[in-house]
Amino acid sequence: MILVLKPGTTEEQQRELINEIERLGLKVHVSTGEQTTIIGLIGDVSKINPYALASHEIVAKTLRVNEPFKKANRMFKPEDTVIEVRGRKIGAGHFAMIAGPCSVESEEQIISIARALKKAGATFLRGGAYKPRTSPYSFQGLGIEGLELLKTAGKETGLPIVSEIMSTEVLDRFVEDVDIIQVGARNMQNFVLLRELGRTRKPILLKRGLSATYEEWLMSAEYIMSEGNENVILCERGIRTFETYTRNTLDLSAVPAIKRLSHLPIIIDPSHGTGKAWMVPPMSKAAVVSGADGLIIEVHNNPKCALSDGEQSITPDDYAALVPDLRKLAGFEGRSIEF
Amino acid sequence: MILVLKPGTTEEQQRELINEIERLGLKVHVSTGEQTTIIGLIGDVSKINPYALASHEIVAKTLRVNEPFKKANRMFKPEDTVIEVRGRKIGAGHFAMIAGPCSVESEEQIISIARALKKAGATFLRGGAYKPRTSPYSFQGLGIEGLELLKTAGKETGLPIVSEIMSTEVLDRFVEDVDIIQVGARNMQNFVLLRELGRTRKPILLKRGLSATYEEWLMSAEYIMSEGNENVILCERGIRTFETYTRNTLDLSAVPAIKRLSHLPIIIDPSHGTGKAWMVPPMSKAAVVSGADGLIIEVHNNPKCALSDGEQSITPDDYAALVPDLRKLAGFEGRSIEF
Amino acid sequence: MILVLKPGTTEEQQRELINEIERLGLKVHVSTGEQTTIIGLIGDVSKINPYALASHEIVAKTLRVNEPFKKANRMFKPEDTVIEVRGRKIGAGHFAMIAGPCSVESEEQIISIARALKKAGATFLRGGAYKPRTSPYSFQGLGIEGLELLKTAGKETGLPIVSEIMSTEVLDRFVEDVDIIQVGARNMQNFVLLRELGRTRKPILLKRGLSATYEEWLMSAEYIMSEGNENVILCERGIRTFETYTRNTLDLSAVPAIKRLSHLPIIIDPSHGTGKAWMVPPMSKAAVVSGADGLIIEVHNNPKCALSDGEQSITPDDYAALVPDLRKLAGFEGRSIEF
Amino acid sequence: MILVLKPGTTEEQQRELINEIERLGLKVHVSTGEQTTIIGLIGDVSKINPYALASHEIVAKTLRVNEPFKKANRMFKPEDTVIEVRGRKIGAGHFAMIAGPCSVESEEQIISIARALKKAGATFLRGGAYKPRTSPYSFQGLGIEGLELLKTAGKETGLPIVSEIMSTEVLDRFVEDVDIIQVGARNMQNFVLLRELGRTRKPILLKRGLSATYEEWLMSAEYIMSEGNENVILCERGIRTFETYTRNTLDLSAVPAIKRLSHLPIIIDPSHGTGKAWMVPPMSKAAVVSGADGLIIEVHNNPKCALSDGEQSITPDDYAALVPDLRKLAGFEGRSIEF
Repeated sequence: MILVLKPGTTEEQQRELINEIERLGLKVHVSTGEQTTIIGLIGDVSKINPYALASHEIVAKTLRVNEPFKKANRMFKPEDTVIEVRGRKIGAGHFAMIAGPCSVESEEQIISIARALKKAGATFLRGGAYKPRTSPYSFQGLGIEGLELLKTAGKETGLPIVSEIMSTEVLDRFVEDVDIIQVGARNMQNFVLLRELGRTRKPILLKRGLSATYEEWLMSAEYIMSEGNENVILCERGIRTFETYTRNTLDLSAVPAIKRLSHLPIIIDPSHGTGKAWMVPPMSKAAVVSGADGLIIEVHNNPKCALSDGEQSITPDDYAALVPDLRKLAGFEGRSIEF
Repeated sequence: MILVLKPGTTEEQQRELINEIERLGLKVHVSTGEQTTIIGLIGDVSKINPYALASHEIVAKTLRVNEPFKKANRMFKPEDTVIEVRGRKIGAGHFAMIAGPCSVESEEQIISIARALKKAGATFLRGGAYKPRTSPYSFQGLGIEGLELLKTAGKETGLPIVSEIMSTEVLDRFVEDVDIIQVGARNMQNFVLLRELGRTRKPILLKRGLSATYEEWLMSAEYIMSEGNENVILCERGIRTFETYTRNTLDLSAVPAIKRLSHLPIIIDPSHGTGKAWMVPPMSKAAVVSGADGLIIEVHNNPKCALSDGEQSITPDDYAALVPDLRKLAGFEGRSIEF
Repeated sequence: MILVLKPGTTEEQQRELINEIERLGLKVHVSTGEQTTIIGLIGDVSKINPYALASHEIVAKTLRVNEPFKKANRMFKPEDTVIEVRGRKIGAGHFAMIAGPCSVESEEQIISIARALKKAGATFLRGGAYKPRTSPYSFQGLGIEGLELLKTAGKETGLPIVSEIMSTEVLDRFVEDVDIIQVGARNMQNFVLLRELGRTRKPILLKRGLSATYEEWLMSAEYIMSEGNENVILCERGIRTFETYTRNTLDLSAVPAIKRLSHLPIIIDPSHGTGKAWMVPPMSKAAVVSGADGLIIEVHNNPKCALSDGEQSITPDDYAALVPDLRKLAGFEGRSIEF
Repeated sequence: MILVLKPGTTEEQQRELINEIERLGLKVHVSTGEQTTIIGLIGDVSKINPYALASHEIVAKTLRVNEPFKKANRMFKPEDTVIEVRGRKIGAGHFAMIAGPCSVESEEQIISIARALKKAGATFLRGGAYKPRTSPYSFQGLGIEGLELLKTAGKETGLPIVSEIMSTEVLDRFVEDVDIIQVGARNMQNFVLLRELGRTRKPILLKRGLSATYEEWLMSAEYIMSEGNENVILCERGIRTFETYTRNTLDLSAVPAIKRLSHLPIIIDPSHGTGKAWMVPPMSKAAVVSGADGLIIEVHNNPKCALSDGEQSITPDDYAALVPDLRKLAGFEGRSIEF
């Protein structure tokens, strides 16, 4: 960390500040420029409170030199992380094709969609049992019953299942039943939940918060990893901007950015990322060639009657038409879509 | 709700769509313009999934006519809500002066700050026991011990206490010990937590999420209220924008906006809203004259050594200097600061 | 346009409002719901001031039914527009490969880059003569001399040239010398400039403003087109969001969105869109498969010494390595890159 | 400026980089930490291209130590700037009450509004002759005729006049006729216009761009000042965020922020800042106590029929009711509203 001092600070004031820093177990390096004096802090600053130092009366501002994430940092683990889920791999060239309805609605629905997706080339089945809805009056998901139905559909098709957890109360059940546990955008900074997930060894699909920077997102991965669970898959699902034509603004630059900052796999959710079914095919293709490690796509047999998110769901037929294109593009990039 | 149809839809297609809507128990009103046909939906649309209707092939877009919040809506309860907390009132002219450190750090710290604040004119004591921190390596609060210390300081001074809850696991303890339970910005859409809080009768201080619209914020209040707890106080604490000079952008327009949309009290947090101690006095004054129902301000005896958020904390002396100004301004507006 | 009335308005008030609207030459369609009455306006509302109607005391809000752009609207011209520039086409499957340095710096520089780009497969040469720089102390471009050098390089290589105009004073010169006139993001709503460009017949490359919605962007195209110049190429170059790791957030969803809303070609600028040279290859590929009609890429022979925007410039060698991949991907989509 | 080097750079690479920097006439200060080496640049870095240095292969990132604005910087001119306009002062305790219609529509309109405003306590008259409108089909202002009418109203009442310039073509006329020349938000980075205004000695009211940071805004002031015209008044008018309930998000923190960064006066536009007439009074009061140097408020005799921006205009009666409150609040802060 670097402290930029205000102009006109006395040597005595500087000495005092340096003493304070040294009492924290750090060394300093002072550099006096023409207008400005800066103090570099040498040592492990991760436990220092930068806001506190910033409030010193002679400190004009603080500049951070290193990223605050460690376990998620590519600097400390250069090779790509590969997540294994029941024999399937995600990351380092292994591409995940996750698909399914926003909400599990009935046995018939989820099994028929699962079969169609399996046939079309999906490699994982997603389905919501607990739904985070903006309104308390909207359909909130079938809960534990939905989870059961999803499990049945997973068994029926052999597809590993992915579902979103909303609170620690059902954690044991998720650990038992679900193959990849999803943390939704609205819970990206639910730190209690992250910690508990960090104490399991389940793969976690961590969605980016609506207004989370890359760094905050990686710090949330760090919460999980710092407890010992390094099986984190990041998922970009659109950020909130001023543009309202799309539901969110899909930030595909997140793919190369995360690849540079971290060794964790990153997948793309073009359904929430755009909010419009007709944008899913072009954005899915773009995601593949941008270097993403997978796609999570909402598919519903009857989007017009979907109990949630119909506008952004494509049909199983649309999905079946899209997969060959994605496969070709993935092949072009040397990835393997396993199915 | 209004459906705008695509140009060139046939009468048969329209008839089909109308049948579908009528099967949902709603009436329709069709209006045919020069270029465009629109269908108005008449009846209770709150349970309808607008995204599903938007995915109909002949629907170009959907427009919403009414706000989706009911219990929080001023249309259905025109008079201001007043929250009572141990004899003190918030709302409808009653102004809350909440102050205290970001984190409870020790008995000596919290008691000395509490005494100074009481003397200066604060009417509530805030203090963090469980701290939502971006980094897993940062100080996470003293937990239950911090809560105990805060309680002691509350008793010592007679000030009701305010503290942030991060998960339902400690809910019983919060209900027992804390006078106003705070929900932080990062948990504004932790719907499981909101529901559980709705089942208590405790006053809830609901902070606005970093990228939450007014409507989403009020829908989160609605989650609490729909379970029976109508004691919700809203708190604007800055939103995330492109500007990085301030920690957040304090949106003071939220005060008149919320006053028009809802009957709930709204208070302002200028500390998180700006992230800079020296901005707290001007923004506090602005909050008072904008019509806010209270202020929640971070005060620390030694901001330079605060374990969290030092840069934005003012000292008890700064606070004591500010209160008379706020009192004068509140008097100017006819509010009562009780102390 | 639809007016939603406040609850409790009297029939007399409604009658008055309707009279006022009818005096503007429009018809109305009144629809009375359970809670709400709405008034649909029938006729040409493009000249109506919606803000004025919104200020009526009985109007709760106004909802717009149709897009305000006409000449740029695909609804009124379903087939893709193709722009012709000295025998080369852009749009409807014709892909433009525009490349060159941010600033023209010297004859040697621009000619050597132009030759390398031509050889690598670029189809247009870009170069800045007038540079919009945030700081008055930064290099502002060589001005008219830069334009001369660019022209020379264009002649030398046969590549049509693209350059940014910053004010109407040099318009005649640009019309004479430049093949595609670029309007920068910061001038997207310089309406005086847009009008003047609309009076020429030159192809205009209209960059999206940093915080412009799709609709505002198309309205700026409409300014040019309403004066008679329909040769507008849109260019997405990243929008301003809260994320600061990238210079801007490249919004690739703009490609399918604009394709649906308008018939105009749209190209992508991954250099400004990301601000990082190493992001240019993946984002360029993503742009091609998302359906874009071209790419504008900053290429500099020595990015370390570039007088502007070095961090985001790739070298001619990088470009030469990228083009074959783009060509394959474009072929995959059935586009033609002509060279 | 500080360069943070990538880990693993060799001494030779460092030596090379340092040589390059020294060739630019700067000195360096190298500091080697446990994980990271940083290089501080000593000397005048204002002409250096930071992007170019950032593209060096061994540079991980660049950190800026000092603000890039000089003439606008309070560090180099600690005392508040006071702008004089025909005997009236703005800044350093002198508060400007600027009011008038969005557009000048007719002689009768502008004169009657001007008289009412003068009587109510306004100290400057604003009125738009050239209107930047998103749509080419909207009313664009009366142009030179509007300017004439505004001038007449100014003479009639003795109020100095404020009007927006949109291009350099009418600059001479504005210099002759207008007392304060306004630059609108959409032209904040129209650098050609800024430079030309810098060559006059007229007071310039520089509105903040919709997505401009404080620093970019001050750099635009710097454009004007670097040409010799130091009479710049900054105007916060709301920024673009994700919130759509208000037209823009009024950023009142800009007042203390700008006061700290710069010596220039700053005024507030609550009309554009909120887009809603009923928000103008509370936000105007908040602006006064936040420390602003003035207010620019849209006032129209008949907002329902205003040719532009009716929804945000208050009536002369509303204005007359507001002024005494503002005066009291300004008195409370020790400012002088002169009238």
